[in-house]
Amino acid sequence: MKGQAMNTAPAPGLNDTHDPLLQSWVASANTPETDFPLQNLPFGRFRLAGDPDWRIGVAIGDQVLDLRAARVIDSNDMNRLMRLLPEVRRSLRQAISAGLRVGSAQQDTFKAALHAQSDVELGLPCEIGDYTDFYTSVHHATTIGKQLRPENPLLPNYKWVPIGYHGRASSIVPSGTGFHRPNGQTKAPDAERPSFGPCRRLDYELELGVLIARPNALGQPIAMADAEAHVFGLALFNDWSARDIQAWEYQPLGPFLSKNFASTLSPWVVTLDALAPFRAPFGRPEGDPEPLNYLASPANSSHGAINIELEVWLQTARMCQAGHAGDKLSQSNYADAYWSVAQLVAHHTVNGCNLRAGDLFGTGTLSGPNPEQGGSLMELSSGGKRPFTLSNGETRSYLEDGDTVILRAYCVREGYRRIGFGECRGTVLPARTLDQQTL
Amino acid sequence: MKGQAMNTAPAPGLNDTHDPLLQSWVASANTPETDFPLQNLPFGRFRLAGDPDWRIGVAIGDQVLDLRAARVIDSNDMNRLMRLLPEVRRSLRQAISAGLRVGSAQQDTFKAALHAQSDVELGLPCEIGDYTDFYTSVHHATTIGKQLRPENPLLPNYKWVPIGYHGRASSIVPSGTGFHRPNGQTKAPDAERPSFGPCRRLDYELELGVLIARPNALGQPIAMADAEAHVFGLALFNDWSARDIQAWEYQPLGPFLSKNFASTLSPWVVTLDALAPFRAPFGRPEGDPEPLNYLASPANSSHGAINIELEVWLQTARMCQAGHAGDKLSQSNYADAYWSVAQLVAHHTVNGCNLRAGDLFGTGTLSGPNPEQGGSLMELSSGGKRPFTLSNGETRSYLEDGDTVILRAYCVREGYRRIGFGECRGTVLPARTLDQQTL
Repeated sequence: MKGQAMNTAPAPGLNDTHDPLLQSWVASANTPETDFPLQNLPFGRFRLAGDPDWRIGVAIGDQVLDLRAARVIDSNDMNRLMRLLPEVRRSLRQAISAGLRVGSAQQDTFKAALHAQSDVELGLPCEIGDYTDFYTSVHHATTIGKQLRPENPLLPNYKWVPIGYHGRASSIVPSGTGFHRPNGQTKAPDAERPSFGPCRRLDYELELGVLIARPNALGQPIAMADAEAHVFGLALFNDWSARDIQAWEYQPLGPFLSKNFASTLSPWVVTLDALAPFRAPFGRPEGDPEPLNYLASPANSSHGAINIELEVWLQTARMCQAGHAGDKLSQSNYADAYWSVAQLVAHHTVNGCNLRAGDLFGTGTLSGPNPEQGGSLMELSSGGKRPFTLSNGETRSYLEDGDTVILRAYCVREGYRRIGFGECRGTVLPARTLDQQTL
Repeated sequence: MKGQAMNTAPAPGLNDTHDPLLQSWVASANTPETDFPLQNLPFGRFRLAGDPDWRIGVAIGDQVLDLRAARVIDSNDMNRLMRLLPEVRRSLRQAISAGLRVGSAQQDTFKAALHAQSDVELGLPCEIGDYTDFYTSVHHATTIGKQLRPENPLLPNYKWVPIGYHGRASSIVPSGTGFHRPNGQTKAPDAERPSFGPCRRLDYELELGVLIARPNALGQPIAMADAEAHVFGLALFNDWSARDIQAWEYQPLGPFLSKNFASTLSPWVVTLDALAPFRAPFGRPEGDPEPLNYLASPANSSHGAINIELEVWLQTARMCQAGHAGDKLSQSNYADAYWSVAQLVAHHTVNGCNLRAGDLFGTGTLSGPNPEQGGSLMELSSGGKRPFTLSNGETRSYLEDGDTVILRAYCVREGYRRIGFGECRGTVLPARTLDQQTL
């Protein structure tokens, strides 16, 4: 480690909302296994049966607190809430934390605003404006690069440019939504012409989603020092990918139909405030170039890595029928990403591009340094060449119809309460048969 | 020509709104040079000085008709209007046409709803959801390909896949907006490391924008036969491009910061109904593969090419000071595109991707078959290697600060009134100097 490795954990910004001894009068928030103790307080949107309107909620144990009903906010517009100044957002977090603590004077008001999470529908956390996907895991980029270009796996720009590209916002769906296996053009290397039909190399991508808070004006870059003030928080994100469609379509302008048929976002956005105790040292391997100035962390900055454990689980249709919760396919950690959240914000805006509240960045597939830490099947099955066996004897190289992929994430640190991200879940439905008119 | 060449012009769908003898009681609509005769009636949004709210208008001569004030519609929500069924949209067009004709009983009501275009602010025609850029000119793709890969200019997927990629919606600005030359990373081929600074190869791209009307549900492809019913109309679009930033960043996932600093959309959307008289034969050169079934036009379809003349004009700062309207740099025709609007819609949705009202497709740079018909400076100056001389003695290979690029388009056909698209205009402002904090 060198250079930015000087910025070591823990970050400043810890306050009484992070106190591990805090207990809530919501009993389920005090169990050791909950993702949502009083120290987390992630934001999301939910609605009640029969009411078409989304409300803003905060997860606490197995409950969700309706913020407007609790009189903490006066609007159900999440994007408006995201635009608040960071200090106002922090005050809001303080107020919610205070109201949910044992002994709070607001307990009665807040209690009347609670719903069991199992009773409500959880939606996308906000209206998503533009969605950008990055490629921040050098381990993922190297493994995929080796499959495509064995002699030149990592392109020369990788350690200079936080590689990113634009994705499709309309097809981002909330956790729990099934989607049909996409149809599309594919071409076998030895085929004379492409053929049309269902994707045969359907994959997931383990990512985190970064939700943008405050906008910047067109033409006004965001400096590294200000970057995290423009970030609302992180959620789980699965960028489903059709590898065979991608291979045929992506030259020269990048992935398109191979990615935009569906992407799944988890309902709860864990704020950077909640993640403050889990900041990690950030640096580059010895010998790697220093980032250009506009991507360099200011001295003594708390910016940099975040220690988030990430897991991918697969539950096949057979497992589901047998009441089997699924197999864990891989585990990795967000601290292994090559580019930080702040660097993504600074890079995205350095040309003057304007971000808006509710914009989403995907981190790109978060693979770890070891082969078993691949964040996609393309990595775990070596491009489909090495199918692996599941605990019930089934084998997989790519996803089959009926497969459910579940992403999970959590933060642990000695002396702090564990916080979690909930889950990001999606099920592969069979490809639609196109009718004669469409074909 | 073969295969789809069977679908020849003119399209059906002509009705009395296309009658070339129709005259309006708005005198400026009857001049031969206007872009906006009674036969055009393009939709856009405008606002009056002091009023922050956008209204829906239709251009007629040098005036704009406020549709709500004229009691033709009851809302100023353009995206809602775009979602109307095609037959309802057509009725709306009929009603506007009838009210603006000489002898209309509604003349007094409509007259009270007119504003001079010069008195109002013209904005983006709608709230843009997702923006996708295509690459439909085989001439552009071939010329650019020759510069990058002389031995292999056109990639093997080009004649099978309507190549497209996602762009940035937030930075799409209305015609007339200046934008700062972007800063970014570039790397000279012989340099050891990239450097940071203002783009030195700033370019325009002559495109048409396709505005989507009716949405489709996620997972529900749109068939070729239905595709045009999902299209609201066409506008002019300039996809400004930083070629030096693009060259360094775009592998392996496509263009990003080289494109998303600004794109300019013209205010008026010319509907497919207005374009009906200008449909053109559509086919592929002998020897080219037939498109796959899902991209094939139904028999006797009116889908296919549209005969739209396109022009690029450049007015330098010196020309502007001298009262010189600018030089015409190139002229091409949309009928030379390799993929039709219907094919773009069918391809974009064949995997189940959902379109929403207000989504924008760019056609990609619309270059003609001859070298002087290049729709970008990268083509006209051979990648900057052959600067050319303007009428006032200035030379250009790429854009200079103070340059204004103006796109224009119009349709002409014997026996029909000429209709035009107005203009799409943008000016290059100097790069911002990043402050010390940002750097």
